[in-house]
Amino acid sequence: MEKPMNVVIIGSGAGGLTAASNLRKYSENIEITILTLENQVAYSQCAIPYVIGGEIGSFEEIIMHTPEYYRDRGINIITDSEVIEILSKENLVRYRPKKSQILEKNNEYFLSFDYLIIATGGSPFIPPVKGTDLDGVFKVRTIEDGMEIKEWGEKCKKAVVVGAGAIGLELGYGLKQVGMDVSVTEMLPQILPRSLDPDMALKVQSYLESEGVNIVLEKALDKISGDKKCESVVVGGENIEANMVILSTGIRPSVKLAKEAGCVTGDMGVSVNERMQTSVPNIYAVGDCVEVYDGITGHKTVSPFGTTAVRQGKVAAKNIIGRDAIFKPVLNSVVSKIGELEIGAVGLTETSANLNGIDVIIGRSRALTKARYYPGCKPIDIKIICSTGGKILGCQIIAKETVAERVDTMALAIAKEVQCEEITEMEFSYAPPVSMVVDPIVLAAENALEKLNNKL
Amino acid sequence: MEKPMNVVIIGSGAGGLTAASNLRKYSENIEITILTLENQVAYSQCAIPYVIGGEIGSFEEIIMHTPEYYRDRGINIITDSEVIEILSKENLVRYRPKKSQILEKNNEYFLSFDYLIIATGGSPFIPPVKGTDLDGVFKVRTIEDGMEIKEWGEKCKKAVVVGAGAIGLELGYGLKQVGMDVSVTEMLPQILPRSLDPDMALKVQSYLESEGVNIVLEKALDKISGDKKCESVVVGGENIEANMVILSTGIRPSVKLAKEAGCVTGDMGVSVNERMQTSVPNIYAVGDCVEVYDGITGHKTVSPFGTTAVRQGKVAAKNIIGRDAIFKPVLNSVVSKIGELEIGAVGLTETSANLNGIDVIIGRSRALTKARYYPGCKPIDIKIICSTGGKILGCQIIAKETVAERVDTMALAIAKEVQCEEITEMEFSYAPPVSMVVDPIVLAAENALEKLNNKL
Repeated sequence: MEKPMNVVIIGSGAGGLTAASNLRKYSENIEITILTLENQVAYSQCAIPYVIGGEIGSFEEIIMHTPEYYRDRGINIITDSEVIEILSKENLVRYRPKKSQILEKNNEYFLSFDYLIIATGGSPFIPPVKGTDLDGVFKVRTIEDGMEIKEWGEKCKKAVVVGAGAIGLELGYGLKQVGMDVSVTEMLPQILPRSLDPDMALKVQSYLESEGVNIVLEKALDKISGDKKCESVVVGGENIEANMVILSTGIRPSVKLAKEAGCVTGDMGVSVNERMQTSVPNIYAVGDCVEVYDGITGHKTVSPFGTTAVRQGKVAAKNIIGRDAIFKPVLNSVVSKIGELEIGAVGLTETSANLNGIDVIIGRSRALTKARYYPGCKPIDIKIICSTGGKILGCQIIAKETVAERVDTMALAIAKEVQCEEITEMEFSYAPPVSMVVDPIVLAAENALEKLNNKL
Repeated sequence: MEKPMNVVIIGSGAGGLTAASNLRKYSENIEITILTLENQVAYSQCAIPYVIGGEIGSFEEIIMHTPEYYRDRGINIITDSEVIEILSKENLVRYRPKKSQILEKNNEYFLSFDYLIIATGGSPFIPPVKGTDLDGVFKVRTIEDGMEIKEWGEKCKKAVVVGAGAIGLELGYGLKQVGMDVSVTEMLPQILPRSLDPDMALKVQSYLESEGVNIVLEKALDKISGDKKCESVVVGGENIEANMVILSTGIRPSVKLAKEAGCVTGDMGVSVNERMQTSVPNIYAVGDCVEVYDGITGHKTVSPFGTTAVRQGKVAAKNIIGRDAIFKPVLNSVVSKIGELEIGAVGLTETSANLNGIDVIIGRSRALTKARYYPGCKPIDIKIICSTGGKILGCQIIAKETVAERVDTMALAIAKEVQCEEITEMEFSYAPPVSMVVDPIVLAAENALEKLNNKL
């Protein structure tokens, strides 16, 4: 009997676990081993702010599966272990259990592989300023980070979140909900700078401020002050008292292992082709550690989302077992829920269009999520970004319901290169309790189309 | 100065009013006159069941605009008036005020037109059986019908709704909510036969039954019994006591005026080209009275939805003012909300595929509307219908939230001839409070894709 194919996966995030599950789905006859630094696998990173804010009862609830779940399916998981080196010529991985386990110190092990999948994710970017090592200063990445934040927060009153991306804002809102005084600081002149244009970001900012979250814009982190514990944050010369500081200043791809193994890396992460294959033919890479292409600008970019990791994990698994699958350039569909507000975006922003020298036409609508006479209808704001040729390139949506699904419709529209005019003619379903007779997306598209026609 | 263009519109439903508003939007220099049988214009027919069920407070609330609203915008509305004849050679419309108005009896008037838009809608089909003229027997079409049903219902206890389409079920549920004993009868072996396959319909039936609505299937209406007032309904030989009967047995297009004017009509309504133009070049027709094409089968069909009427009204207006616009074959996106349950469908059903001899592959998923650990996540059932070549042809969705918007995504997928495999690779937005990391639509598409691959 032939020796079964042997796949080793480094990392137990969404990308690594999806690759493992899909390999197993396609074949019972593959040896699959996951090596991970963590003790828990298969938990939802995105849910951490909601546990901290009390919307989800406990961290236990956001653990989807235990390591045993995977072991029962024939996927070997080695937890609490650090990969030291990938020996790409020998097809070996050298790893070491973390000290926390009762094992001989510095004991090292080797695992051989036919295929390797690097799913090392990313690590929080720590701004190079004084005081980030004080007690009470946290990053947000793992479930342990979340637990530490929750525990510390219960003992104090004033929190500063540095970085007004989605996670920073979700966390800021969550900490406010559990009774803290919260400031969220951002070095750029708007919140959510990656996803939203300033006009749309302002609507989210107003909501957060009305909920009592203090937003501090255009101020970079100078330092964190304190003796042993943090006492205040200094941003743009301004001192803000803080018993607790959370650094939500982005993620940097963890490329060290890949690079040392001889895999080509770019500015944004490990370089992969559309099959998620690195420059070393039997080594694949998926998730936050890889570099992807922007579907609109064609530039290299990152896509640090669980959904991207899942889609990449599937593509890697399919290619390894010999099926055909490719990963397309990303549109980076995102959605966040902050309190009652849902914020979603996909594709190009107006800001990014300007930066890239792309001429665009903007369409806007402010409408309702249901018929205006139906109890509980809510305002919805939509901004559509079109090329001067009329093609939909991006969309931003803010409302208290139905944002995610509308973003998905627009993601498909962008992917299929749909014209603004087609959207105005498109069939949308209608019933008064769930929609308007003319959909808010159609209204925004009509607004853009009018400007397009006037330009002609 | 040239005499302005003069457009007459017969009917003040969604199609007629949209045509009028769009003509005015494009030009201040058009004379626009709407002739209507009704006293109120611009109310939401679709909302009538929700007023009867008490979810919406009053019929006044579902009137979007008064006739004055339109008159203020230079659109002349002649209410309570019946068009007797279209004299297409003379470009004249002959009409008569209804007796209810204080005017000389049988006074007739003429209006001339450069363009005429027939938006006469449809009239409820009344089954040709005994007793449909008894007191307590109602149809559901106009706001007056709704008011009569509400008034009568408040004085009695037992209601039978004949016809288990969306309106029949919405009404049946509504009457149950206000305290009546309700049976909904249907001659076919399932509810919602136009939109859903039997397996999906059963889920809706179970919900209605759990809410106390009695569903009687495969029994055609034999007669309605009673002396002056209705006392019972006999369906398939079975007698059901009823102080009130609502006939929700479909709509027949009102084509009489168009036919007599010399416009070609088909089995399903007034024949129009893709510009909504009838066989008489300066006469257009829009809304429930016209025949349309099914986007999947290519067959002639009806599309008696407010959204269709709106889209057709826009196309007619654009063509009349000399712009270019076409109305595409329909996919008949529908959504309904019955109690807490949303039911949506678009495109081909499996049943209809079988009837039309189209081989299809089915994909199903039963998943959740949010992350499973997020409070308030709800089950969602999705059924996808694909061609054997992998193209998405139809979709049915049932859940307590987000159905309408998901149906819209699938409507776009069908319109753009998207392959099932593309859906499995598509970007869906994700955040635990609003979605699953792998979207339920992706799960259904993956299920279909597996069957497709196994067939190859």
